[in-house]
Amino acid sequence: MQEITSVNNNLVKETVKLQQKKYRDKENKFLLEGFKCIEEAFNAGIEIAYVFVSDVKKYAFLADKAIFTTEPVLKKISTTDTPPDAVAVAFKKNYAINDLNGAQKVVLLENIKDMGNLGTILRTSTAFGADAVILYGRECADIYNPKCVRSSVGNLWKIPVVYIEDFKELQFAFGDYERVATLPRAKEFLKNFSVNKPVVVMFGSEADGLSDELINFSTQEIKIEMASNVESLNLSVSCAVVLYKLFL
Amino acid sequence: MQEITSVNNNLVKETVKLQQKKYRDKENKFLLEGFKCIEEAFNAGIEIAYVFVSDVKKYAFLADKAIFTTEPVLKKISTTDTPPDAVAVAFKKNYAINDLNGAQKVVLLENIKDMGNLGTILRTSTAFGADAVILYGRECADIYNPKCVRSSVGNLWKIPVVYIEDFKELQFAFGDYERVATLPRAKEFLKNFSVNKPVVVMFGSEADGLSDELINFSTQEIKIEMASNVESLNLSVSCAVVLYKLFL
Repeated sequence: MQEITSVNNNLVKETVKLQQKKYRDKENKFLLEGFKCIEEAFNAGIEIAYVFVSDVKKYAFLADKAIFTTEPVLKKISTTDTPPDAVAVAFKKNYAINDLNGAQKVVLLENIKDMGNLGTILRTSTAFGADAVILYGRECADIYNPKCVRSSVGNLWKIPVVYIEDFKELQFAFGDYERVATLPRAKEFLKNFSVNKPVVVMFGSEADGLSDELINFSTQEIKIEMASNVESLNLSVSCAVVLYKLFL
Repeated sequence: MQEITSVNNNLVKETVKLQQKKYRDKENKFLLEGFKCIEEAFNAGIEIAYVFVSDVKKYAFLADKAIFTTEPVLKKISTTDTPPDAVAVAFKKNYAINDLNGAQKVVLLENIKDMGNLGTILRTSTAFGADAVILYGRECADIYNPKCVRSSVGNLWKIPVVYIEDFKELQFAFGDYERVATLPRAKEFLKNFSVNKPVVVMFGSEADGLSDELINFSTQEIKIEMASNVESLNLSVSCAVVLYKLFL
């Protein structure tokens, strides 16, 4: 088994660069940190390029890809305060708009920037049977950002995640769908609402909400019922409640 | 208006200490960072001791408590990477078990350690009409931790939050309640379930789940239906879905 213990090793340096989007895009690779993430990705058929491990036995299922290393190296390449016992480099799985063919239950997030929320929403969407997630707008976060990978807990690649920037492309893809906008100002309550399929359920960012463009594009507006002394819900919480009610 | 611009000023040093639980407990005070948190706390009747502001006009509603300051001071006392335009020091609101009298809908979290989840759950619980939240066990996080205050977005003090460490105390308080355990191994699905009140709905930590002690104490076990290829949900997501279904 290969062994790398110097933090100045070239492969270590190359790996650290994958913390940045620019290098992830260029190399088409990303980082998986810690056992749960690596195992889930492996089981989901994500191709692993190599994995730095400090505990060889635990990662026996990746023996042919393993590079034995030490904590200082793991500390350098990982993005968490406490370094995990392994960091893998995997190949990104890229989806295109064609992968949406036949999707009945679609989640759309507009200009979502919070990595933790994004990862959590991918996890929830997969759990509640969404067929795809659309990331719409120029300001959407990168799902291969390490924080998003972590918060998705291995649910980043089980359903297609498609980036769309162009409104016309969106119209073309979802023109025949029921298009639900979740809005605090909506008159219809979630409790009383059920959807026709195919459906795309649309959420704005916590800071800005849905754009007028998408509100106008919607065929339905709904809101989650809540106590009058609470202004709003966390975005991943809103998503979870709406998807649970409409998709399951 | 008082003005403090030195990061070595004594009041600045005292304020920084409130980042630590030990000093929050000793002083019975905590930090509020940024406009939304400060405004919500003020509107909810939380007593503010003083507030460091860089934008006097914006915080005119707190003019009698305001200390004009500069960004270096705000950077020093705040816990975020980007300092907010104000940090307030407020008095903690402490609840005791007597504050639970008459509570019909109670949320119990066992040994919850993740600050972001805790704040989000307090926000969701308030939004979905919980009458109180119980933090059970010796390892529960401090709700006045700055990260929890932030993620609650001003929903830390609208309903009683009571710490209970002793199981007998719990039995005494909730012996007559319906006691719902949310468990992946439960046979009953949330969809088919509705509760009798008064009810306490119990959640374990993401890492450890509910203890046997609380599982045995429960009168009902339920689980959230989800896709078989997803192992679990984020804790604040689970809470949100269960509370929405059972409380609203």
